Amino acid sequence: MSREAAFIQSLRALANHSAARNLDDDCAVLEVGAETLILTHDMMVEGTHYLPDADMADVAWKLVASNLSDLAAKGAQPLGVLVGHMLGTGDDRFAAGLAQALAHYDVPLLGGDTVAGSGPKAHGLTAIGRATHVPVPARSGAQAGDTVWVTGTLGRAMLGFEALRDASGKDSAPYRRPVPLLAEGRALAPLASAMMDVSDGLLLDAFRMAEASGVSIAIDSACVPLAAPSRPLDCMTWGDDYELLFALPPGRTSPIPASMIGRVEPRGFAPLLLDGEPLVNPEGLGYAHK
Amino acid sequence: MSREAAFIQSLRALANHSAARNLDDDCAVLEVGAETLILTHDMMVEGTHYLPDADMADVAWKLVASNLSDLAAKGAQPLGVLVGHMLGTGDDRFAAGLAQALAHYDVPLLGGDTVAGSGPKAHGLTAIGRATHVPVPARSGAQAGDTVWVTGTLGRAMLGFEALRDASGKDSAPYRRPVPLLAEGRALAPLASAMMDVSDGLLLDAFRMAEASGVSIAIDSACVPLAAPSRPLDCMTWGDDYELLFALPPGRTSPIPASMIGRVEPRGFAPLLLDGEPLVNPEGLGYAHK
Repeated sequence: MSREAAFIQSLRALANHSAARNLDDDCAVLEVGAETLILTHDMMVEGTHYLPDADMADVAWKLVASNLSDLAAKGAQPLGVLVGHMLGTGDDRFAAGLAQALAHYDVPLLGGDTVAGSGPKAHGLTAIGRATHVPVPARSGAQAGDTVWVTGTLGRAMLGFEALRDASGKDSAPYRRPVPLLAEGRALAPLASAMMDVSDGLLLDAFRMAEASGVSIAIDSACVPLAAPSRPLDCMTWGDDYELLFALPPGRTSPIPASMIGRVEPRGFAPLLLDGEPLVNPEGLGYAHK
Repeated sequence: MSREAAFIQSLRALANHSAARNLDDDCAVLEVGAETLILTHDMMVEGTHYLPDADMADVAWKLVASNLSDLAAKGAQPLGVLVGHMLGTGDDRFAAGLAQALAHYDVPLLGGDTVAGSGPKAHGLTAIGRATHVPVPARSGAQAGDTVWVTGTLGRAMLGFEALRDASGKDSAPYRRPVPLLAEGRALAPLASAMMDVSDGLLLDAFRMAEASGVSIAIDSACVPLAAPSRPLDCMTWGDDYELLFALPPGRTSPIPASMIGRVEPRGFAPLLLDGEPLVNPEGLGYAHK
C-alpha cells in the first residue's frame, strides 16, 4: 500500500463518523439548508508538482485551474477560493498568476493564509462552488450499457511540458495554463451518469471511475483524440489535461463537443479494458501522486 | 512593509474585483442563497509553527483548533474541514490527532489532498461553518463607548510551551491542545459589536481590532487575568491562547464568563492604550507571522 493510501486508511479507521469518506475523491459535497455546496482542496509543492525555476505565475494559475476543474466535473458554479501561500521568491509572480486566473473565471479570492517557511515551498487552494444540478455527478455513477466520452484532445499538456523542458519554442501553454471546463461541466451535469476530470491520465482516471462504479470500462484507443498520435500510451497516461471524462446513458449523445471512446460493461475480471486487453493494475496508467 | 503585507497588497492591486478583501482578516463570509457561510484557511509549517520533534498529533489538533477558533469568533457552527497534508514521518500521529480533534468537536472531515514533498512539511486546513447570527460579528465593529472583554486567562499557552521546552513536567496541554470556544462564540454573536480570537497575543489582536474599527482601545492591564502575574507583558503578547476578545455595547454584560479589560474610545493618536500609554506600533505586541 502506498504511503498516501496508508494515511487515508488510518484516517478512516480513527475517525469514527462520516469523516474521510471523500478523501480519495476530488470533491466534497455538502448540503447546507437548501444549498448543495462543492468543496475541493489541492496542494502543490515545489520539487514535487513544479520545478524550482518555474514561473510562479504559472504555478498559481495551475493551482486555481486544478481546483476549478474539480468543480467543473461536478457541474458546479465557483463561488470563491481560499489560498494558503508560503512566502518566498516569486511572490509577485504568484500574486499576478493568481489574479489572472481568478479574473479569467470571475472567481473572488475569499481569504487565506500566508506563512513563512524554509525549504521547498508549498501552496494550497480551497475552492467552493454551488451545485447547478442535483444529484451532483460523481465518478461512481457509471452503469453497464452507458457510453464513455472524453472532451478535447489528450496529451496536450504532455507536449506543452516537453516544449518547456526542451525549450523548443513550441506552445507550452496547455501545460502551464490549463483551462478548466466549467461551462461544459454544467452542461453535462444533468445528463452524465458519471463524471470526473482527467487530471492524472485518461487510463488511470477511467480505471478509477470503473472501480468507484463497480463496473468495467472498455476503451477503444482508436477513438481517443491524441495530441501525439504516434505516442498513444503517453497521451493516455500523462495527466494535467483537465478534460472531462463522463458516461452517458444509452441513446444519449453529448451536448458539448466530445468523443465517444468506449462503453461501460458489467464488472468483469478487470476494471479497465484497452482495445480488449484487461488492465487489472492501476500502476503505470497515470500519475498517481499528484 | 513585511513580505506578507507586500504580498497581500500586490494581490489586492492585481485582483480588480472583490478579491483579497478578507486576506488579512481571519475568515471570509460568503452568502449563498439563504445561508451565510464562514470559511477560514490556516497553514502550519514545520520549523515555523512547530518544532521538527513535535508530536504530529498535537500539530494536527492545533491546526483544527486554530481554524475552529476563527469560526468561534464568528459565532459559526462548524460544518466540516478539508485538510492538505504533506506526507512524512508521523503521519499516523497526525491522523490520530486530526481524528481526535474532529471527534471532540463532532466535525466531519469532508476531503482534502495528500502530497509528497521533500524538506520541511506543510499542512493546511480549511474549515467551513454556518453563521448562527447575522450580521456576523467582525473585528471592525467596535464603537466608542463599548466595553472590551476577554474570556479566560492569558498566558496559559506560553506556560504550556515553556513546560514542554523545559521538560518541567508542568501541564503543556494549553499549548499543545488549545480549545476553541465555539459555544461561547455562538452565545456572544448576537450581542458583541466586535469579536475576534486572541491567536497572536492580546495586545496585537486588540490593536488590530482598533485599527479595523477606526477606534482606540484602552486596556487596563490590572483587569486582564494572567496565568503568570509576574510577567504581564509576556502573557499579553504571547499568542496561541485562542480566547475570545470582544466589545459589548454600553450597559451590556457578558452572557458567558469573561473579564472586562477596557473601553473603546474615539480614535485618538494611538489605536491602543495600555494603562494610558499610547501604543502606535504593532511591532512587539504579539506574534505577527503565524
